[in-house]
Amino acid sequence: MTAIAQTTAVVLPPTTDAELEQLLAAAQRAAAPLAARRPAERAELLDAVADALDAAADQLVPVAERETRLPEARLRGELKRTTFQLRLFGEVLRDGGYLDARIDHADADWPMGAPRPDLRRVLAPLGPVVVFAASNFPFAFSVAGGDTASALAAGSPVLLKAHSGHPGLSRLTAEVVVSALREAGAPDGTFALIAGTAAGAAALRDPRVKAGAFTGSIPGGRALFDIASSRPEPIPFFGELGSNNPAFVTEAAAAERCAEIAEGFVSSFTLGAGQFCTKPGTLFVPAGSGLVEALRDAALPPAAPLLNERIQSGYGEVLQGLQSNPRLEVLVQGAGPLADPPGATLLRTTAADMLAEPDALQTECFGPTAVVVTYDDESQLPELAETFEGQLTATIHGTDSCQVEALVEVLARKAGRVVWNQWPTGVSVTYAQQHGGPYPATTAVGSTSVGTAAMERFLRPIAYQGFPQHLLPEALREDNPLAVPRLINGRREGGR
Amino acid sequence: MTAIAQTTAVVLPPTTDAELEQLLAAAQRAAAPLAARRPAERAELLDAVADALDAAADQLVPVAERETRLPEARLRGELKRTTFQLRLFGEVLRDGGYLDARIDHADADWPMGAPRPDLRRVLAPLGPVVVFAASNFPFAFSVAGGDTASALAAGSPVLLKAHSGHPGLSRLTAEVVVSALREAGAPDGTFALIAGTAAGAAALRDPRVKAGAFTGSIPGGRALFDIASSRPEPIPFFGELGSNNPAFVTEAAAAERCAEIAEGFVSSFTLGAGQFCTKPGTLFVPAGSGLVEALRDAALPPAAPLLNERIQSGYGEVLQGLQSNPRLEVLVQGAGPLADPPGATLLRTTAADMLAEPDALQTECFGPTAVVVTYDDESQLPELAETFEGQLTATIHGTDSCQVEALVEVLARKAGRVVWNQWPTGVSVTYAQQHGGPYPATTAVGSTSVGTAAMERFLRPIAYQGFPQHLLPEALREDNPLAVPRLINGRREGGR
Repeated sequence: MTAIAQTTAVVLPPTTDAELEQLLAAAQRAAAPLAARRPAERAELLDAVADALDAAADQLVPVAERETRLPEARLRGELKRTTFQLRLFGEVLRDGGYLDARIDHADADWPMGAPRPDLRRVLAPLGPVVVFAASNFPFAFSVAGGDTASALAAGSPVLLKAHSGHPGLSRLTAEVVVSALREAGAPDGTFALIAGTAAGAAALRDPRVKAGAFTGSIPGGRALFDIASSRPEPIPFFGELGSNNPAFVTEAAAAERCAEIAEGFVSSFTLGAGQFCTKPGTLFVPAGSGLVEALRDAALPPAAPLLNERIQSGYGEVLQGLQSNPRLEVLVQGAGPLADPPGATLLRTTAADMLAEPDALQTECFGPTAVVVTYDDESQLPELAETFEGQLTATIHGTDSCQVEALVEVLARKAGRVVWNQWPTGVSVTYAQQHGGPYPATTAVGSTSVGTAAMERFLRPIAYQGFPQHLLPEALREDNPLAVPRLINGRREGGR
Repeated sequence: MTAIAQTTAVVLPPTTDAELEQLLAAAQRAAAPLAARRPAERAELLDAVADALDAAADQLVPVAERETRLPEARLRGELKRTTFQLRLFGEVLRDGGYLDARIDHADADWPMGAPRPDLRRVLAPLGPVVVFAASNFPFAFSVAGGDTASALAAGSPVLLKAHSGHPGLSRLTAEVVVSALREAGAPDGTFALIAGTAAGAAALRDPRVKAGAFTGSIPGGRALFDIASSRPEPIPFFGELGSNNPAFVTEAAAAERCAEIAEGFVSSFTLGAGQFCTKPGTLFVPAGSGLVEALRDAALPPAAPLLNERIQSGYGEVLQGLQSNPRLEVLVQGAGPLADPPGATLLRTTAADMLAEPDALQTECFGPTAVVVTYDDESQLPELAETFEGQLTATIHGTDSCQVEALVEVLARKAGRVVWNQWPTGVSVTYAQQHGGPYPATTAVGSTSVGTAAMERFLRPIAYQGFPQHLLPEALREDNPLAVPRLINGRREGGR
């Protein structure tokens, strides 16, 4: 570790107070000119960043491999997802629907009892944002990941707090981003990398910063949320924290697709060595269905290294804690479950034990471990689902004839995304994606950190009353020069 | 005061712990069935409440007059606004656009690099909400006001913490609401009144409550925000707190419309005896333009009583504090500026003094007082505007030839609504209204508490992945039985 720590220190020294002050001042200076760009102009900036990252793939991926121990194919796929994401936000900018532009013409007879003035409302960027990168997706949730892409798309400058797990990749990616933005004509200060826990917290406390975004652990995310909320001027903090992602197999599904479900589950909970925030951590299966045996006999994948020493040791601690719980027994385990790399582990318990001690048995174990819970009667499932806190995802494997309405109701209340006959890992970047959920899945239940709606986090509404045309934002002018869709006097008009 | 206090205690005793527990349990039980109602069915509930309130006007208004000392015409107008607001949310429910329904069909060739699953996203209610009523709008921001209307429209049960300023009206209004909801078939527990500071705070701390909304003072709102944010499960808290609502008169406007502006300003800052959160508290006028003299000579309206003894005494304290500031002098004052009822007061200072001590000179004075600031050069206005914290509104009086782009940029960054050649008092309930702003105007910069977008506060997104049609919410089914507008594969379809 000493060698690694030294390398890290050389590669990415903590941002000093003086450096941070310069970067914050530059971000604040960039805010107004960046906000003033037309949406389609900001789309060009995102495209430029995406192109530059694609062009730098052969430089970026080897550094990522070295620092994260993730395989090349996975990293190349993740980089592709990352640049696709930047371009998708560009498409959303060109469409303009994200502006939620609304025009109410003056109406002397408005039935409220008083004349309605001319009112026009549009979403505008919040201002500088500090984004805390995650360790487990060194491209997609890091320097140029979803939080950065959606904040820049919204028109908010980004201070990116690098994750210490991949300092060299962070610096290299930031160089590509900064250079691409500069060449594309973005205002200086649109994007900057900062390093070190203290600098991240200081940035979040700074009055020039207007929002925070984070992907990581519950304790880390909660500490930052508390900083953001206790500022003299509290600011929104969009933390994506922890999730157990329970999955429920009905009796009919187990009878119909026993082997397929066992195989799919093993593949999902070990994907990326179990280091996904959407890893299914608990699987409820009918007792006596043969699914427990199928899982016990399933082929576990080869052990894969965890991201870094800190995650390796944390994984070992949590796994040992679970194994020492008398309510849990080992169902199946790969070779060297506590070794580096660790073989996968499936633990086993019963519905009665889960109901008796849900908090301990639902502890998130970041790595290739999951818990299989046998239940006796499908009617228990809603009660079992109720024992979970807020989740990013919840999954049901059923058949069309299963009576699962009550279970769906509970899971839709608990989770941001409910999955049917698929597995929650693999979060597609789309228009309808929702990656969020009630606390502790996130600190902002109304938001998503993946999908085109992620932009909404960094926008705020402004209404203009009685304004002359030439002083209005273009999206609100009568002749609609940007051709954005709008709500005019309560009716949708225009747009593609 | 003793007599009033005794009457209050009799009319609306503090909710006991046991009562609160019953009401919270009922609200939680109501949440799922209320959420399961079709939007158009919830619209019928809102219509029923509106009809019942209109029918009870002759009972409600006299109680409101007695408890708030506001004149009958104002109260009847406010009640009309309140029932209009309920019906407008009903219209939004019937339209269905508020659901932001999105469908992405499965796409094996999705260019992200992995197949896109079938994903469908819709907004759903947060669950039980506690609403803290305001004193200054006993109908529109109280028991059946905008927060209640938007939460019920969203499908979230409401616990309404009554304002102690109008206990009898609160109880009577709540009886009308509860009775109308019951007769219209709403689930028991959809709405309940609670009383007392302790009960309000306890409700906000309760894990069954999923959001809070508030209109009132900065200290009160911040204390509740801190409770909501420091819960084990933090919840969104939509507080609308304080605002100075600065207004800026350009040199050309002052030259062109001196008397009209003076008259309009006096009328606006004294409207409702200055007890509006949108009262323009500061007016910047060009020195030597004659506007100061016009204001000095303007006819002040007759003194009007403040809402209650607490507001009267608070107003006197703040006004005396302002008058004792050597940077402020009295420009004009009605008879008995500290009497009950108080005559209106206009104070006067200079731009240099405002720049020297902005916090003291911008103290919100809830009542018929405002500050006139003379400036020497229009180019000072953006710098003066920068001295303000977050605002609900900011106003410019100008002409089409004024160079105010820089001022508009600052004000749009500071305020939720920017007004041109009108006055900020009178917040129309419309589709494009924005009643919010950066802290301390509100505790949630991305939200509004007036206008149809106010519903968004009480909604959260849920995505359904790979779901069979019969288990999907109706808004997401392929055949669109509710005929709601939707985003399908990134393109807008349907709706009126």
